[in-house]
Parts: sequence; C-alpha cells; structure tokens
Amino acid sequence: MHASDSSLTRRLHAILPANALGLHLIEQDTQHLVLGAPLALNLNDKGNAFGGSLASAMTLAGWALMTARLTDAGHAADVYVQTSQIRYLAPLYEDIRAEARLGPGQDWETVLAIFAARGKVRAWIEAEVREAGGRLCCCLEAAFVALRPTA
Amino acid sequence: MHASDSSLTRRLHAILPANALGLHLIEQDTQHLVLGAPLALNLNDKGNAFGGSLASAMTLAGWALMTARLTDAGHAADVYVQTSQIRYLAPLYEDIRAEARLGPGQDWETVLAIFAARGKVRAWIEAEVREAGGRLCCCLEAAFVALRPTA
Repeated sequence: MHASDSSLTRRLHAILPANALGLHLIEQDTQHLVLGAPLALNLNDKGNAFGGSLASAMTLAGWALMTARLTDAGHAADVYVQTSQIRYLAPLYEDIRAEARLGPGQDWETVLAIFAARGKVRAWIEAEVREAGGRLCCCLEAAFVALRPTA
Repeated sequence: MHASDSSLTRRLHAILPANALGLHLIEQDTQHLVLGAPLALNLNDKGNAFGGSLASAMTLAGWALMTARLTDAGHAADVYVQTSQIRYLAPLYEDIRAEARLGPGQDWETVLAIFAARGKVRAWIEAEVREAGGRLCCCLEAAFVALRPTA
C-alpha cells in the first residue's frame, strides 16, 4: 500500500458526486494512478458507460495523481483542473478503469521543485480508459494547477 | 412546454449517473437547452461544484440539445459525443445551470438536412456554466455525431 493511499481515499470520499459514481482508488505508484468505478452505477441509456462518468473518472484520476505526488513530497496543496481535452473513441461495456500519468516532456522532480520554490505549479496530465482486453475507449489531456492553500 | 420535453426527460432518467448527480431539464427552445443540478449533490472537497459534475452537465446538455432537435424533426437518432474541450475558469458555489447551443458557423436546418440525406451528421456544440450573477465558470466545445439507429 502506498503511503498516500489512505489520505487520498479520504479526500476522494469527501467528493460527494465521486461517491455517487462509485469512484475509488485501485492502485498507484510514483508514475501512475488508477481509479475505478462499477459500470452498474455509470450506465447511459445505451447500456454502456456514460460519457460524463468517463470524463469524471479521467479528470479525477489526474487530480488524484497530482495531489498524491505533492502530498507524498510533504507539500500542502490544492489542485485544480484548468483545461481538458477528451476524445471518446469506443463505447465501454465494462467497469471503468481510468489511469493517469504525467504527460510527455515533464517529470515529477521538476514539478515538485517548482512548487517548492514558487508555491504554485502547472502540470499536463494524460489519462485513459481501456477495456480489459486493451482497446482504448477514451483519453484525456488536462492541465492541472497546484496552489499552496491560503488558509 | 416544449414538444420533446417529456421524451427528453425520460431519456435523461435512463442515464443512471445523471440521476445520481441530480441532472434535469430546466428549459429548452429551438436554439438552446439548459440542464440543472443541485450543488448539494455535486460538492467537491472544497465546497464548490466538482469538475466532473460540471463536465457531465455541459456534455449532457449538448447531447440533449442535439437529441431534441433531431427528435423534434421526426428523426430516430443515437447521439454520441466524440471530442470535447473544457476550460474551467472559476469555482461555482451555486446550483449548476449548464446551457448548450450550436457552435458558430452552423445552423440546425443544415444539420437536420444532412442527417435526413445521409443518416449521419456531426455538429459542434458549445455549452457553458455561469453564476446567476453572470460570471462564466466553465465552458465546453464538443463534437457530437448523430447516427440512425441500426436496430
């Protein structure tokens, strides 16, 4: 179990709609983080996963990854999503599994060093949802900003 | 009450996670459609509206607008979101009100004519969430495709 698992699970539980969609932490390490949600709670009128649920799962996975990396480095930080771009490629008829990682050309060492120096940093995070068989269903690129809490 | 209100409300109710977030039709006319959701069901850990809920509300408003325009024109159609771009500009501390309309350079007459001729059409739809006071909180641009049902 990762050091920040329980803290992250507590923060996820504080997000009411994430609970309503059944979003929960599946696994994480320093490079990636996976959130899951049961298909049964996220069905659209066509019997597959609702686009809004897929968007929520990928966005929240990115938020959780950035929050966890900052928390593990000992920083208090509020993380916000600023922009996101999503491509929906194929319907998903399985439980949702959204995996997030830092986008290309960045590394956490630099992101954390900038935050330590300035109390603020922006990072680009990628997330995707695949079928168990590997087929890509949707993907997200999003900019997140972390700020030192004002209170 | 608009002709397609009850049919649309029925389709929205068939989307389980939309019910969980309290998403419902507020109003529509031929040019725009507004979905609402109570803040109480959509709170994040900071006491404002969860980004995933805002994304869901805007995406579903766009889906509902395109579905309603096709239904009102007498077409059976399945509408899917293909891509979306979202900007999150300010936190929302009020009930969610997501308003969708067709993006610039398009008109419903043409969109419906293409669908009638080809059984398929793509449209760009814009949606936004504003505070009651008018401040823009977030906005979406998304491509939706409508297909004649295969079954």
